[in-house]
Amino acid sequence: MPAETAQPKTKTALPSWKDGPAKQAILDFVATATTAGQGFIPLADRIATFDNDGTLWSEQPLPAQFDFVFRKWGEEVKGDPSLASTQPYKALVESDMAFFAGVGTQDPATIEALLNAFIRSWAGTTPDEFDAEVRAWLATVKQPKFGVPYTELVYKPMLELIEFLTAHDFRVFVCSGGGRDFMRVFAEETWGIYKENIIGTAAGYRYSDGVIVRAAEGLGGLDLGPGKPEHIFAHTGRLPVFAAGNGDVDIEMLESAAFALVINHDDDEREFAYTTGAEKTVELAADHGWTVVSIKDDWSNVYGSSPAA
Amino acid sequence: MPAETAQPKTKTALPSWKDGPAKQAILDFVATATTAGQGFIPLADRIATFDNDGTLWSEQPLPAQFDFVFRKWGEEVKGDPSLASTQPYKALVESDMAFFAGVGTQDPATIEALLNAFIRSWAGTTPDEFDAEVRAWLATVKQPKFGVPYTELVYKPMLELIEFLTAHDFRVFVCSGGGRDFMRVFAEETWGIYKENIIGTAAGYRYSDGVIVRAAEGLGGLDLGPGKPEHIFAHTGRLPVFAAGNGDVDIEMLESAAFALVINHDDDEREFAYTTGAEKTVELAADHGWTVVSIKDDWSNVYGSSPAA
Repeated sequence: MPAETAQPKTKTALPSWKDGPAKQAILDFVATATTAGQGFIPLADRIATFDNDGTLWSEQPLPAQFDFVFRKWGEEVKGDPSLASTQPYKALVESDMAFFAGVGTQDPATIEALLNAFIRSWAGTTPDEFDAEVRAWLATVKQPKFGVPYTELVYKPMLELIEFLTAHDFRVFVCSGGGRDFMRVFAEETWGIYKENIIGTAAGYRYSDGVIVRAAEGLGGLDLGPGKPEHIFAHTGRLPVFAAGNGDVDIEMLESAAFALVINHDDDEREFAYTTGAEKTVELAADHGWTVVSIKDDWSNVYGSSPAA
Repeated sequence: MPAETAQPKTKTALPSWKDGPAKQAILDFVATATTAGQGFIPLADRIATFDNDGTLWSEQPLPAQFDFVFRKWGEEVKGDPSLASTQPYKALVESDMAFFAGVGTQDPATIEALLNAFIRSWAGTTPDEFDAEVRAWLATVKQPKFGVPYTELVYKPMLELIEFLTAHDFRVFVCSGGGRDFMRVFAEETWGIYKENIIGTAAGYRYSDGVIVRAAEGLGGLDLGPGKPEHIFAHTGRLPVFAAGNGDVDIEMLESAAFALVINHDDDEREFAYTTGAEKTVELAADHGWTVVSIKDDWSNVYGSSPAA
């Protein structure tokens, strides 16, 4: 733990963010949080949490994790066609995307079936085996709209925001409904965030004879909706002071934070324009005083491929 | 994540450690780990894990956590005497300490009963309520041999070791069979370690209407024996490169690390002399090349009350 200090950082912050109310709100929050006086946040409490899909990278037409998992389940159904009569394999075979889009709000039995399928697919694998699977997927699969690997569709402004918060002694965590171990494979090289700061939906582990393997049961349920603050508190012992999200499955996490940032996907040219899955978030944002980021208006640069303004 | 650098720290390290093979082994390990060449450990992999009871503070005649939990269970039995016929309350009422000493090696049903009792006692409490309970206990309960609060019986040489490792860019975690949330109450002020770096036996959490409360079920089983590397891997995405422990419930964690330190309690005058619960550890230490620390011979100062040599 570093010493308790409040040293203003002077270098130009957030270069891919255009001047405007969103950028100003972030700068004001951080200035207040790190300056002695009202609103100062002690170092220990400076926990910032970021959703991943739609907050750190593009999630349309399909979140990357779904792409990865669907390929696995597709192989499983090929090996055992009887699976196709049960969920979630049935929805996959029938291309019933509404089933997966509603994952956060399904009935508990359906969520359980989905979680169990996800856990079962990799039960018994070692971390090295899983790592190799994810890396093979990253190396070969291209996102359909842009034709590049998913990790090239990380938002540059959000990477700058992570760096800005870290420079002000916030400890930044990613908290996603996606698989924790999936994200941990690329977290360090893609986000500059250590694996231990990645929180997500996860399996347990079993250790014997010097070997760690994935267990056949889940650990802590789906990291969606109320599961987000639950996972964050279990992992860190705190609720966040800063949270960023973009959809209705982030609402509880956003509510649990002192400062909340909502990414609004309104740029069909450079990214995607949609509000599906975020209807309630948009509605709540004004009431709660959440800061809404317009990709179209607030970011001069989306993926780092165009020069920053 | 800091930049990948290897900068030797020159200040005199580990002042409460006497010159000898244990101190030298630690200094050599850290020098090698942080110097380019064979044995260099990349920053991301520098995970160090410490057991708590008997490794960071005294655990005789009773681990502090047992003292805390037993008082709670005592009240529960007073309120509902029928509990006294079932475990673990029966063992408490009958002062059957062998039952609790064997906690790591009981049959699964007994371990389950013990874990459930521990979880049930605080199900529904908020973090603030639990925090207040632990602080009240810290403020009033004295350790029987020394007559001071348990947190005054933290080993000064181990605090110096944590500081030394941290200065060399190791991320230090505590991994104890004791309650994670119990340790998190005093972790920051006592060890200088953030709550999110405390791993232990734990309950889940439930979030609703802006409030986090402890759930009625456990999360990930007992953090003992194989549970230690399992919890460490689930929390950090890695196994440790450095681990310190003192008992047979630490064996799997010690085995999982590149460098293992075993605290040998052989100082009846300044602390306690015992090998109970560490018989197998002592036996394995030589075979595995683990570094054994003699409290009597290797530490000039145990609790910080005597001046460092």
